[in-house]
Amino acid sequence: MDVIKKRRSIRKYKKENVSKNLLLQLIEAAIWAPSGSNVQPWYFIIVDDANTIEQVNVFSPGLLGKPPSVILICSDRKKAFETAGTLGRDELCVMDISMAAQNIMLLAEEIGLSTCPVKSFNKRAISTILNLPDYVSADLIISVGYSDEMTSTPKRRSVKEVTFFNTWGGRI
Amino acid sequence: MDVIKKRRSIRKYKKENVSKNLLLQLIEAAIWAPSGSNVQPWYFIIVDDANTIEQVNVFSPGLLGKPPSVILICSDRKKAFETAGTLGRDELCVMDISMAAQNIMLLAEEIGLSTCPVKSFNKRAISTILNLPDYVSADLIISVGYSDEMTSTPKRRSVKEVTFFNTWGGRI
Repeated sequence: MDVIKKRRSIRKYKKENVSKNLLLQLIEAAIWAPSGSNVQPWYFIIVDDANTIEQVNVFSPGLLGKPPSVILICSDRKKAFETAGTLGRDELCVMDISMAAQNIMLLAEEIGLSTCPVKSFNKRAISTILNLPDYVSADLIISVGYSDEMTSTPKRRSVKEVTFFNTWGGRI
Repeated sequence: MDVIKKRRSIRKYKKENVSKNLLLQLIEAAIWAPSGSNVQPWYFIIVDDANTIEQVNVFSPGLLGKPPSVILICSDRKKAFETAGTLGRDELCVMDISMAAQNIMLLAEEIGLSTCPVKSFNKRAISTILNLPDYVSADLIISVGYSDEMTSTPKRRSVKEVTFFNTWGGRI
């Protein structure tokens, strides 16, 4: 609970690079996320080459604060469709990679790294820059680095406001 | 990392009920997931009434092992659309509730509960049983209880198999 509550989306990073060893630990966490029909449609592209990051940055308005590395999470939609039909391709893929992303962000918090999930990017441009095959969908970018900002706790809707019992609107 | 690796999807539960206090702790973990544009479109319906669970069970082929409680995670697609357009409604919502779901499953593991994410259910029937308004989408069911099975570790694709550096197919 402590790690879950401490995680913040960070949008300003120090220049310090993240070691390949730590980045690979994040992927190790990611692959243990649950996966619908156990398809595991995910692929992770670690981008830490300065030139490539700069290109990615140009086409990603949501990527802020100059992180030294990003992880692009993508999914093999063809494989997902073959195993689990349109539900697999259109919904399970997104759920799988999102749960994997949350593992990445929580482990990062635990080992002293900071992250931000970024959805605002030009999918086609990013796919071209990173040479994705056409059956692979670029789903989510996670920036990874050492935080260089003081964050405040964002406003959350309370548990009471968003929880019902046994029926919509139901209270204990 | 330990909690992430230990979590298994459980499909056989003891009859023992889960206290409302513990169920609410899971929701407390959920609401700290990141949310695109901070919309927090999520709602959580805790179902622990035996009658209601039975009705949910009938229309949820994927819900196995008679859990004493389930959490239906749903999202307010109207609110998501108003804040973040079609991207918000169709993609960010699913990502948000999936990350919230992963928080639930990880905290459950940490406090001695077991879970399983269930996507195979009749959305319309579940919406009717739980009286969801038409702008709310029933996205994911999480079963919650005390495990009554010994699980083995499912086969995972290795980090090496799913990770590239700086370009599709790129190695260190």
